[in-house]
Amino acid sequence: MSALDDPTDANLAPSIADAPAGVSDHLIAAGAFSEGERNAVYRAIETRRDVRDQFRSDPLPEDLVRRLLQAAHSAPSVGFMQPWNFILIRQPETRERVWQAFHQANEEACAMFEGDRRAQYQRLKLEGIRKAPLSICITCDTTRGGPVVLGRTHNPATDVYSTVCAVQNLWLAARAEGVGVGWVSIFHEEAIKTILGIPEHVKIVAWLCVGYVDELYDMPELSVKGWRDRLPLDRLIFEECWQDGEEP
Amino acid sequence: MSALDDPTDANLAPSIADAPAGVSDHLIAAGAFSEGERNAVYRAIETRRDVRDQFRSDPLPEDLVRRLLQAAHSAPSVGFMQPWNFILIRQPETRERVWQAFHQANEEACAMFEGDRRAQYQRLKLEGIRKAPLSICITCDTTRGGPVVLGRTHNPATDVYSTVCAVQNLWLAARAEGVGVGWVSIFHEEAIKTILGIPEHVKIVAWLCVGYVDELYDMPELSVKGWRDRLPLDRLIFEECWQDGEEP
Repeated sequence: MSALDDPTDANLAPSIADAPAGVSDHLIAAGAFSEGERNAVYRAIETRRDVRDQFRSDPLPEDLVRRLLQAAHSAPSVGFMQPWNFILIRQPETRERVWQAFHQANEEACAMFEGDRRAQYQRLKLEGIRKAPLSICITCDTTRGGPVVLGRTHNPATDVYSTVCAVQNLWLAARAEGVGVGWVSIFHEEAIKTILGIPEHVKIVAWLCVGYVDELYDMPELSVKGWRDRLPLDRLIFEECWQDGEEP
Repeated sequence: MSALDDPTDANLAPSIADAPAGVSDHLIAAGAFSEGERNAVYRAIETRRDVRDQFRSDPLPEDLVRRLLQAAHSAPSVGFMQPWNFILIRQPETRERVWQAFHQANEEACAMFEGDRRAQYQRLKLEGIRKAPLSICITCDTTRGGPVVLGRTHNPATDVYSTVCAVQNLWLAARAEGVGVGWVSIFHEEAIKTILGIPEHVKIVAWLCVGYVDELYDMPELSVKGWRDRLPLDRLIFEECWQDGEEP
């Protein structure tokens, strides 16, 4: 697309010296990465784990945390809404209160499983809130960008989807930094909102436990522990339309 | 954690020869990536774009598409639910029908903006459904894994969050492969479900337009086109609790 094709930027400048960069000036070459770079991206994707117990206790350097947040902030967002905030929680007292909220919800969760499955559930460690030195609460401000947001007109939940993309960016960057991340989802949202003073119009999307790790599982922990196996990818791919069949 | 610490695996084997691999055998060294690998991960994160118009028309090799889907399938999922399916749509007739559904919804969306903003909206190209050679519809089966899913007990939407993580994995892998991805969200879900025959209990999370690109914008397209600017990261970071203040 040339600048002349674009009605928003063409011919707005009073002189060449004052001319803003045209839209086409922002298009830059963007081919495939080198094989080594590509492998690094796939390595982050394939070896990323949901960490519950492998956290070291030493604090993360400020510049490293900043890189993780910058990665999160580089996520796609509907209408460039950028609806996220990042609350960094290091105080042990706050993490203890959040752990209590988790613990209560986890007892409720446990009671929903039957028999052997309940016993198996009880043996799983599902969070590292107190062990990891840093927690990051990632929120979504549903009002940011005003009442009508481009791209969000037909599915209001796309603001939360954007925020989840930020979580996944942070998680992959963390893997490359030797930092483990565990996503805790077992709590009543209102309990955590009360602890952190989060207003009504802001949703909690993720509570992340973050800390250095020396070791990770070579496959998802719930698979290692016998809870549930990886599904075969072939059964999840359909051509052209939905295909009914055996449940994967 | 040693195998002896873990009640699920310890001492279950009748003999050494028959012993299953212990849980601890699955823990492997996992430090930081090399500087080059780390930079590659950040490069994918920072240069990924939501592509609407830069698609080339040549088809993507099957093995490349497979790598993208494998990346998606490596996403974290609540309770290892893996609720996603990937519908690959290449037929132009189907993509035309989906474009019509987009077009109708986009007219509705346009009417929600006022004055100059509406004129600006009309000038934006918001999808590449017909131009990109491949569309991938990524869905979330809300029933997979049964009525009680570990980690989903207190927020049922975590299955959709998992599916969004799969989208973001695919998107970053695509960037490394020189492939552009555009996420279309402007449609009535029921219209697309009808076209693809998607059942009631399955949600559409993303419609992705996918194709090779030679060029990408050096910043988000909506920023290049003057729709909305990047927010300063500093104003999105809070310490220890929510901090009220000026809206970012």
